[in-house]
Amino acid sequence: MQDEKVCADAVSMMADAGIRLTDRERGEIELAGFGLDNFEREGLALVVYVNGDRYCAKELVLFAGQTCPEHRHPPVELEDGRTDPGKQETFRCRAGSVYLYVEGAGDAGGIKAKVPSGSEAYYTVFHEVVLTPGDQYTIPPNTLHWFQAGPEGAVVSEFSSTSRDELDVFTDPRIQRVEAQEG
Amino acid sequence: MQDEKVCADAVSMMADAGIRLTDRERGEIELAGFGLDNFEREGLALVVYVNGDRYCAKELVLFAGQTCPEHRHPPVELEDGRTDPGKQETFRCRAGSVYLYVEGAGDAGGIKAKVPSGSEAYYTVFHEVVLTPGDQYTIPPNTLHWFQAGPEGAVVSEFSSTSRDELDVFTDPRIQRVEAQEG
Ligand SMILES: [Zn+2]
Ligand SMILES: [Zn+2]
Repeated sequence: MQDEKVCADAVSMMADAGIRLTDRERGEIELAGFGLDNFEREGLALVVYVNGDRYCAKELVLFAGQTCPEHRHPPVELEDGRTDPGKQETFRCRAGSVYLYVEGAGDAGGIKAKVPSGSEAYYTVFHEVVLTPGDQYTIPPNTLHWFQAGPEGAVVSEFSSTSRDELDVFTDPRIQRVEAQEG
Repeated sequence: MQDEKVCADAVSMMADAGIRLTDRERGEIELAGFGLDNFEREGLALVVYVNGDRYCAKELVLFAGQTCPEHRHPPVELEDGRTDPGKQETFRCRAGSVYLYVEGAGDAGGIKAKVPSGSEAYYTVFHEVVLTPGDQYTIPPNTLHWFQAGPEGAVVSEFSSTSRDELDVFTDPRIQRVEAQEG
């Protein structure tokens, strides 16, 4: 079920960034809490524009300081016998700022983001990329990454290959990306 | 070579829609005139955010009444022996309005767009889809389509499979999509 206040705030942040949604899209905003029951700390709101067997596009909204937990998009065997190397994602910052962390040089002590307290063990990559409006970064398939909004929050367009959220591998073993369906 | 005034106008239309570009992107705006030498009538400006072997994302800008001529994206044999069914495109209107025409019911007499005079023979599909901000439409591979901006112009996000512009098939035989490289 949608939390109406949170969805309204997300719509408002998108509107401020010039992004218009249809009524239907507003009703289908996904609030991803990853089963951690602390949405304000680890969570994000998202609108899926299109997701098919060739490409996907979404709008992501993070409130100030909110974090999308560390994960990777693993390879997947397709029905036709081919192997998809895993989802590749391009994040383009539209508004606010986002601190993005990927595999590579960097350490926990020297980053702009604040790792969510109590979850330190589940954040392991610290190569920092700071995105402000107009900046973008492409994350290769099967590469660990996590990101946190700066003090103004962030609106981020995601362009990618096919999304299969249920296959995402999170570092935090407590996480279930796709929560049990409600009645 | 870029026409500075036209590019500045395109940047301004994107800015009004909340879309920020990097300096580099501003310097790489493509003004597609299709070799017809009448950019104001048949042409568009575009920014390619990302184009790889899996997905592509662009921003398209059309000035008031400007038209992207009728074309389709044909299947293509890939190096690994597979066949790509042709580029699939999702157009999402961000600002202004766009009149989009695809194969299906509809006739030239009853549409909102004005077919560019002198080019009537090269516009053959008239199934009308009107997009205003927040609306989107997905065009299947290898399907004829063309589009024209409404009176305020249009800013359109394009999400798609891989772009191979040089393979596009235009109905107008005078068109060359990718113009000869300048020194
Ligand atoms: Zn991801
Ligand atoms: Zn097209």
